[in-house]
Amino acid sequence: MASPRLRVRVDVVPIPEDAGSFADLRTQIESELGVFLADQRTQLAAIGTELDPVSIGLAEYVLNGGKRLRPLFAYWGYRGAGGVINRSIVRACASLELIQACALIHDDVMDSSDTRRGYPAIHKRFATLHRTEGLSGDSDGFGLSSAILLGDLALVWADKMFHTSEIESVALLRALPILDEMRIEIMAGQYLDVLEQALASQSVARSLRVARLKSAKYTVERPLHFGAALAGADEEILESYSRYGMPLGEAFQLRDDLLGVFGDPEETGKPAGDDLREGKRTVLIAATLERANGAQAAFVEQHLGRATLGQSDVLSMREIITDTGAVGVVEEMIENNLTDALAALEDSQIEPSARDRLTELALAATRRRI
Amino acid sequence: MASPRLRVRVDVVPIPEDAGSFADLRTQIESELGVFLADQRTQLAAIGTELDPVSIGLAEYVLNGGKRLRPLFAYWGYRGAGGVINRSIVRACASLELIQACALIHDDVMDSSDTRRGYPAIHKRFATLHRTEGLSGDSDGFGLSSAILLGDLALVWADKMFHTSEIESVALLRALPILDEMRIEIMAGQYLDVLEQALASQSVARSLRVARLKSAKYTVERPLHFGAALAGADEEILESYSRYGMPLGEAFQLRDDLLGVFGDPEETGKPAGDDLREGKRTVLIAATLERANGAQAAFVEQHLGRATLGQSDVLSMREIITDTGAVGVVEEMIENNLTDALAALEDSQIEPSARDRLTELALAATRRRI
Repeated sequence: MASPRLRVRVDVVPIPEDAGSFADLRTQIESELGVFLADQRTQLAAIGTELDPVSIGLAEYVLNGGKRLRPLFAYWGYRGAGGVINRSIVRACASLELIQACALIHDDVMDSSDTRRGYPAIHKRFATLHRTEGLSGDSDGFGLSSAILLGDLALVWADKMFHTSEIESVALLRALPILDEMRIEIMAGQYLDVLEQALASQSVARSLRVARLKSAKYTVERPLHFGAALAGADEEILESYSRYGMPLGEAFQLRDDLLGVFGDPEETGKPAGDDLREGKRTVLIAATLERANGAQAAFVEQHLGRATLGQSDVLSMREIITDTGAVGVVEEMIENNLTDALAALEDSQIEPSARDRLTELALAATRRRI
Repeated sequence: MASPRLRVRVDVVPIPEDAGSFADLRTQIESELGVFLADQRTQLAAIGTELDPVSIGLAEYVLNGGKRLRPLFAYWGYRGAGGVINRSIVRACASLELIQACALIHDDVMDSSDTRRGYPAIHKRFATLHRTEGLSGDSDGFGLSSAILLGDLALVWADKMFHTSEIESVALLRALPILDEMRIEIMAGQYLDVLEQALASQSVARSLRVARLKSAKYTVERPLHFGAALAGADEEILESYSRYGMPLGEAFQLRDDLLGVFGDPEETGKPAGDDLREGKRTVLIAATLERANGAQAAFVEQHLGRATLGQSDVLSMREIITDTGAVGVVEEMIENNLTDALAALEDSQIEPSARDRLTELALAATRRRI
């Protein structure tokens, strides 16, 4: 939670030098988020202390876990383009995490997901608040309204954190159009994702397009471009980042799809097989259906998207997904994408120290949870 | 709808001189919105033509009606601070209308309102699309998800329209913090509004606080400050705008509360008595409950917020609200606020021609629908 202690912590955590680990930079990013969120809490409390659940809820949501991938890619995108270490840049990069908070909070409402990172989703948290406070009206409706508004607020706070990061004006002006495109792409990707479920799509190509928008561009390429713009990079660097970022982001999403079905709940913070319950039309599912025999396809279509899916059904689904060879296909796609991404790094003008970090980040994002 | 014709129209509609009417400026604002929305449609279609319902839905929503109050206040705030007429400023001011689109789309979801300005609300529109296209899954769920995403997209498009308005960088940088505060205040105001319904609040003071955040600051004061910042105004002008904008915004909301109960559906674009059905805890309702006898209070509490409220119940509620004297109280508050607002204008350094327009705007916003 955002506490005054975090303000002190920021001053003692040094900005990591090249020798530091991702964990150090992540701590720094989280400290900056903590300071910002504590300030916003003070501001909202001045309007009314009834807003405390809003500021506390958002701060806990943002600070309790998360891989901080977008800020990490943005930061190393900046460094790779020759940008020098400074705290304002960490703040600017950390602001991307608040865009992600909006996306996740609204996503959980749309998917009716009860949990996120092992904690109640925002709409659940506020429905519970409504119930325990004995407020009038519908608790779930109150939870829904709160989640919509907290997501909106997170999106605005992202802007504010970026605008007040104290980076130079020229850098800010260079980065604004990238932020705009990045956010348009994630909203478009989310809509296409919702539409794919409604179309009950079975196409690998269509699922890949959603993965490219939602993950490749939004999670990797655009954050790299954002960092590059902060550093005033030239077109050549931007193109290298695209050649590295697009296949890597796709691979990251494919790993996420595998974890959504086979992942350990301890690690993912979601119940086992949650993607199956939500009926997500991932590349993994599309590859399964392309390869399934009649009985397998019928079983998958019958069970996919059932909110009440039990453990034995999840196990049967996993078996089918593996038996069809879809897991192997997806693992191979991940490897090929990763190879392409790393080759693009080698063949680039990116600063060598940043190149090493981007290599590590690529491996961490696709081979395991980071 | 956003059509290529709008692009032509922009070039033939002149930016109104001082002698022009609000209608001219409104046409100009709408033309700029039309051009921007047509461009966004092209951009989304390049990602996938499945996004056409998104861009068309948003364009129709934004272009089919609306008073354009925030752009009008922003524009005259700019002129009043000595800013000279130019098309980029109209674009920058028009972008506020897209923030309002986000607020309304999400508001309709939260209130479960079926209509807006006489057309289906966005969640209804997309639920219908789901049904007519025979998509799989729950139609209302698809409508909800779409409305959340279209609202988010409208908020991002507002940023993009402002960032690409071609105003000078210094003006843009001055206005960013005002935009941030404005958007934080509207989200905080919306949450407090939702909370007031859940608390079944009966306090005039609490309802007034929500009105100040949602209407006075968001609709009037902040747009004026936004315009003033674009013009590089000094502190004195900003203070004059607050002294004018806060009472005027409050009066505007009070008029809106009266129209929400007594308004003509033809004029409001909402069914008669819709605020009563939604259980809005307005100043009008709080004033009624403060003055009601036991039987009147019981009737109001029993019927307020009932989605199924029939016409005869609406008529009975109206009678109680009038009989308690609450209508008179609210009308008097409107008059007093208007007097304060106009006095603040007289006693200011605001450019005389803009002062005349702000006087007209104040009368139009509080005495009738504009």
